[in-house]
Amino acid sequence: MNETHIRWPHKDLLDVDQLDRQDVAVLLEQAANFQEINQRPVKKVPVLRGKSVVLFFAEPSTRTKTSFDVAGKRLSADTFSLGKGDSSLTKGESLKDTSLTLQAMAPDVIVIRHSSSGAAQFLAERLDCGVINAGDGWHAHPTQALLDCFSLSQVWGEQFTGKCLLIVGDITHSRVARSNIILLSRLGVRLRVCAPRTLLPMAVAGWPVEVHDNLDAAVRDADAVMCLRLQLERQQAGLLPDLAEYSRRFCLGPRHMELAKPDARILHPGPINRGLDVSAALADSPQSLILDQVASGVAMRMALLFLMATRNDGGAEV
Amino acid sequence: MNETHIRWPHKDLLDVDQLDRQDVAVLLEQAANFQEINQRPVKKVPVLRGKSVVLFFAEPSTRTKTSFDVAGKRLSADTFSLGKGDSSLTKGESLKDTSLTLQAMAPDVIVIRHSSSGAAQFLAERLDCGVINAGDGWHAHPTQALLDCFSLSQVWGEQFTGKCLLIVGDITHSRVARSNIILLSRLGVRLRVCAPRTLLPMAVAGWPVEVHDNLDAAVRDADAVMCLRLQLERQQAGLLPDLAEYSRRFCLGPRHMELAKPDARILHPGPINRGLDVSAALADSPQSLILDQVASGVAMRMALLFLMATRNDGGAEV
Amino acid sequence: MNETHIRWPHKDLLDVDQLDRQDVAVLLEQAANFQEINQRPVKKVPVLRGKSVVLFFAEPSTRTKTSFDVAGKRLSADTFSLGKGDSSLTKGESLKDTSLTLQAMAPDVIVIRHSSSGAAQFLAERLDCGVINAGDGWHAHPTQALLDCFSLSQVWGEQFTGKCLLIVGDITHSRVARSNIILLSRLGVRLRVCAPRTLLPMAVAGWPVEVHDNLDAAVRDADAVMCLRLQLERQQAGLLPDLAEYSRRFCLGPRHMELAKPDARILHPGPINRGLDVSAALADSPQSLILDQVASGVAMRMALLFLMATRNDGGAEV
Repeated sequence: MNETHIRWPHKDLLDVDQLDRQDVAVLLEQAANFQEINQRPVKKVPVLRGKSVVLFFAEPSTRTKTSFDVAGKRLSADTFSLGKGDSSLTKGESLKDTSLTLQAMAPDVIVIRHSSSGAAQFLAERLDCGVINAGDGWHAHPTQALLDCFSLSQVWGEQFTGKCLLIVGDITHSRVARSNIILLSRLGVRLRVCAPRTLLPMAVAGWPVEVHDNLDAAVRDADAVMCLRLQLERQQAGLLPDLAEYSRRFCLGPRHMELAKPDARILHPGPINRGLDVSAALADSPQSLILDQVASGVAMRMALLFLMATRNDGGAEV
Repeated sequence: MNETHIRWPHKDLLDVDQLDRQDVAVLLEQAANFQEINQRPVKKVPVLRGKSVVLFFAEPSTRTKTSFDVAGKRLSADTFSLGKGDSSLTKGESLKDTSLTLQAMAPDVIVIRHSSSGAAQFLAERLDCGVINAGDGWHAHPTQALLDCFSLSQVWGEQFTGKCLLIVGDITHSRVARSNIILLSRLGVRLRVCAPRTLLPMAVAGWPVEVHDNLDAAVRDADAVMCLRLQLERQQAGLLPDLAEYSRRFCLGPRHMELAKPDARILHPGPINRGLDVSAALADSPQSLILDQVASGVAMRMALLFLMATRNDGGAEV
Repeated sequence: MNETHIRWPHKDLLDVDQLDRQDVAVLLEQAANFQEINQRPVKKVPVLRGKSVVLFFAEPSTRTKTSFDVAGKRLSADTFSLGKGDSSLTKGESLKDTSLTLQAMAPDVIVIRHSSSGAAQFLAERLDCGVINAGDGWHAHPTQALLDCFSLSQVWGEQFTGKCLLIVGDITHSRVARSNIILLSRLGVRLRVCAPRTLLPMAVAGWPVEVHDNLDAAVRDADAVMCLRLQLERQQAGLLPDLAEYSRRFCLGPRHMELAKPDARILHPGPINRGLDVSAALADSPQSLILDQVASGVAMRMALLFLMATRNDGGAEV
């Protein structure tokens, strides 16, 4: 990696809307560097030695937490996990006191997942250390959008403008969809969403997306399809009449992909409901980027932790 | 830090009564050294590389456990956490077998928190490795008292003699109060306690403290006030008639601090019940040492782990 | 340790039946080397620096998990723990998707404990990284058998042929018994089992063991006795009439050891039911290898992690 000072003006990462094109370019380049390190026999660099990263996951998410944990340790940072069960930090104590207590232990970055929209911003306003939003309520999931962007960049190169991405599934409750739409539209990607009306938010009319409720029409000539995870509790909430009916209309299958571009790719943030979000055959097909997304997640989170934890060190080299 | 051999005669830390003035001086000096390291960009020293620290918390305490975890890793030790949910070590197996099993893995220090008074001593008598009591029942919490002492030393310097500390709240069930009274009275601090009679132990008559049940009188000319955390289950146990009444009489507020010394400080072991243990305004005021206590906790635990894990190494330098 | 390339042909360790005598000899020699490191003041070697070990324990087992965790960190590997509570990896996601997700994070070895027999093999067939079976259902527990073998080798040296080991307790539900019988019979040890008929599997008739239901007869001239842990829920299942009766007939006591060889040793995989599996006096006696087994477990798991994580590195030296 080069030794010139990398421009990174952000103390926190709260949502993708704070990132301009150059920020995204810096992240993609850093992530590509770290992706290469992850393929070596010795997958470790000493760039964050002596830095501390707190993983504060008030909402459970092994997948995202482990990804940040792997990312931190590959950079030689020390990582500290706090979870919902960690009572003295979460019960009987306000989020404010919890976060001030954490800060007093002098971490360099706090990664937070929380069920309340705005929890990450609340912390960021009160703490000196960097705060990364690892998912807050239905609001935002910027690191997922960035890793999806990185996965697509490995297929598309730098040519995002004019590409077409379809997002299928529960748009209303998806912070993944929300953050991806903001980020990818900013990069020039044409966006479509496809969902039953009950899983489309009212606000979608103002978003830079084409709205569909027929998957055959929606998928036509798409360059990539992102299937979302259906939370099965949505059915109990009366938002879905019947899973079989949902699957018949919205589960992405091989026949849909024949309508997309020939080399179209499939994404899913995981964990997958096979046969409901996407057919098992497609999930395992060469078109699927689903496992690449997991690897991209580690590399992108290494890029973010690196940039945020070294921001005040007066230049760093890898 | 200097290279001369540090005198540290203790295999274990069970309570503060085992420490003489010179031991406390050594700890305060080491903690000050480590506090300085915690303010560097690279907060890590290799002094405990290849040492293992087991964090055996049979009673949940994220705050204290994380503090020890941060302390251990900043010294380059490997840390291992066992908790209440770790069934094969705590269920169906005696504390004796659990601790012998842990010892067979050759740790250098075991940090234990347990709901039974005497659990740490039980281990210390049976194990060759160092044992640190991180809170046992209502008995003792020596590392909390030491960190409180370190926080006060950063304000008072070496002048403890003649200073006056008031402890307010549930004295009966507080190992924090008990350990602080022993340690600080030994250093020459004049101690007062203030609590409703139902939360004062019978034994208080024999302690080196002035006993109050009126906060206005108790706080007069105090140099520092330590508010304890009220466990809300005390009310259900019939020890408190009414939280509003308790708050009115015993919650430390700005009007009390006007009666104390002009530069009096406020401590609390956390987590805080704002408006019950201490008013929100005071907790966040410049007089508050509450967040300093958290930072002091990491530094003091670094000092303890360092001294105990290197005791048999024939001299160590930082 | 020597620098010549160590022959280790196994990507995975699923059960001991895959190991020939030379494999076992390599493991015992490596474990002995690492045992020596575990007795140094600095118990750490950099041989797995930059390697990642995932500890995926879908069934709780603090003892075994901590042993692998200590082993990994002593070799300078990074370790990552996933447990049953880690919902997004275990709930609503198939074992296949979970394991592919883990692999995409590029670990070098995955250690798995699972309640389903065959879970480790399922992973091994699908993943490129090494898989170690840390216990699957009633099927196999190869690392326990190997550490038992290592503990015995420290007493018996290389002379296993002709030695006699008695295994006492619930043979039917014991993966420990099953793996030990396979491994030790291959090394020439004569094996006996002793249990109530309700805790002996039908298949025992085809095993290379002498079957007893009288402990006095079974223990005669044995060189070692391995007591198994009785799961107390077996009684509720109707397999045991009465714990007092079981204890009277099958709890190993001092009078039984008088019938064994004079220097006979006692093993138990832990955690012990004192007075049910083995008498408290024997468990703590000089004949007991029970704590040696714990230390042996760390050393043997260091040997396994080292051999499996460096298999593709083109030779490694310690």
